[in-house]
Amino acid sequence: MVYLNGNFIQKNKAYISVMDRGFLFGDGVYEIFPIYNKYILGLDSHLNRLQDGLDSINIKNPHTKGEWISLINKIISFNKGSDNQAIYLQVSRGCDEDRNHTHGDLKPTVYIQSTGLNSRSKEILLKGGSAISRVDIRWSQCNTKATSLLANIMYAQEAKENDAEEAILCRDGVITEGSNSNVFIVKNNCIYTHPKGPLILPGITREIIIDCANHCGIDLKEVAFDKEALMNADEVWISSSTREVFPITNIDDQQINNGQVGPIWSLIYNQYQALKGIKA
Amino acid sequence: MVYLNGNFIQKNKAYISVMDRGFLFGDGVYEIFPIYNKYILGLDSHLNRLQDGLDSINIKNPHTKGEWISLINKIISFNKGSDNQAIYLQVSRGCDEDRNHTHGDLKPTVYIQSTGLNSRSKEILLKGGSAISRVDIRWSQCNTKATSLLANIMYAQEAKENDAEEAILCRDGVITEGSNSNVFIVKNNCIYTHPKGPLILPGITREIIIDCANHCGIDLKEVAFDKEALMNADEVWISSSTREVFPITNIDDQQINNGQVGPIWSLIYNQYQALKGIKA
Repeated sequence: MVYLNGNFIQKNKAYISVMDRGFLFGDGVYEIFPIYNKYILGLDSHLNRLQDGLDSINIKNPHTKGEWISLINKIISFNKGSDNQAIYLQVSRGCDEDRNHTHGDLKPTVYIQSTGLNSRSKEILLKGGSAISRVDIRWSQCNTKATSLLANIMYAQEAKENDAEEAILCRDGVITEGSNSNVFIVKNNCIYTHPKGPLILPGITREIIIDCANHCGIDLKEVAFDKEALMNADEVWISSSTREVFPITNIDDQQINNGQVGPIWSLIYNQYQALKGIKA
Repeated sequence: MVYLNGNFIQKNKAYISVMDRGFLFGDGVYEIFPIYNKYILGLDSHLNRLQDGLDSINIKNPHTKGEWISLINKIISFNKGSDNQAIYLQVSRGCDEDRNHTHGDLKPTVYIQSTGLNSRSKEILLKGGSAISRVDIRWSQCNTKATSLLANIMYAQEAKENDAEEAILCRDGVITEGSNSNVFIVKNNCIYTHPKGPLILPGITREIIIDCANHCGIDLKEVAFDKEALMNADEVWISSSTREVFPITNIDDQQINNGQVGPIWSLIYNQYQALKGIKA
């Protein structure tokens, strides 16, 4: 069962008009909420970011926080066969009578679905994974989690075709983030990640990792670093709501450090797992 | 009547799955064909650009040129009440079973519709129009006519809210194009427009205007110019398939030249009208 504009229906019956501005213009925002045993990790942060995204593109939030939580919990309960779920929530600007770049006051389209969230085991993660690096050609408002994602999905597809976990992006010499993840490096026991701003998505998982680092007493600096620093890092990780914190051991067919998953990753991973269990 | 994936149906019955990647990711391209008395202006150029767009995002063209022309002509005939029409044609990558950034081999979604094309009279155009200028934050593959248009529609909306015809965009000091148009300036009887490349859409109307200038014996240079040149131009125009060539006489509340529509615009406009009538 999915939710579409007021109705809980079968996914294969969830249809929208071709006049939906989500279809015509990529005119919307989205969120993905990770659910562990019905516990929504980072719920409030996700709902705050949804509000920020809607504000940034001038769509009025169609629901209160309470209404969103109620809708999300209903979708979770409809899919209770899965212990862990990823809830996808999209708000588009809605349908106009005709296709015009400009718009009047429209009723937003709301779509919510659940899919299984199968976190990989630590044993599997300790094998590491590879990434490719690419030039970041995206727009300069990457802090809006918008559905105009063509650049991102092209990078993700290129990663897949190179048997890589992710494409890591570089703009003007600086590593920004992945096509659908944030990027962290470790050098001399200090963690580095690109500062928040228009060039990266302010990842909720990124924030959780910062909290984990603080909790573990590991230095973390939100400062930009270049590709050379990436390639010469002691450890490289990517993070997202569905991938949690994932260790990258090879970039562009070049081994990172000794090609092994590092000890700092392991500390952060353990702390992250503990957080998932808080209300489990 | 509109066309959707093999069927000619009423527009209010044209629905697509929420799993369409056009809706989820802005993963598609589009074209707009201007029709004057059943004559499709720039037909071959538009179909070539459609092919280029599909190639650039790795979607296999679902139709031959002959099939596209047949579909477009059917839509034109279904809407024969309107002498002049704008045919909108969108191809998205299609529907997957679930939402994943990456994709397999999907069947593209094809949507075609017609709306009336009401060109403004020369008398009205001679009153000129205004524009606002904005920083160009779009991605760096603007030569792909993609449906991931969020930045563009936000600029168009800002122009509308400022009672302006268009937002003219400036990247790193250089005027690129409008939110949905190309930009031309005239200085000392020479026309200037940004050269083709990843920073602008290679407008079909832009090409027609270049042809018109050649036909009229007016110098035209495809070279970048800065904002100062824009503001101090003798004439400023924008062009698109539906707006043809439109004179801008005021930018950011500042009058361009003497605030009157210029003589070179009039020459190009007349030649453009003659082309529209070739097969009328």
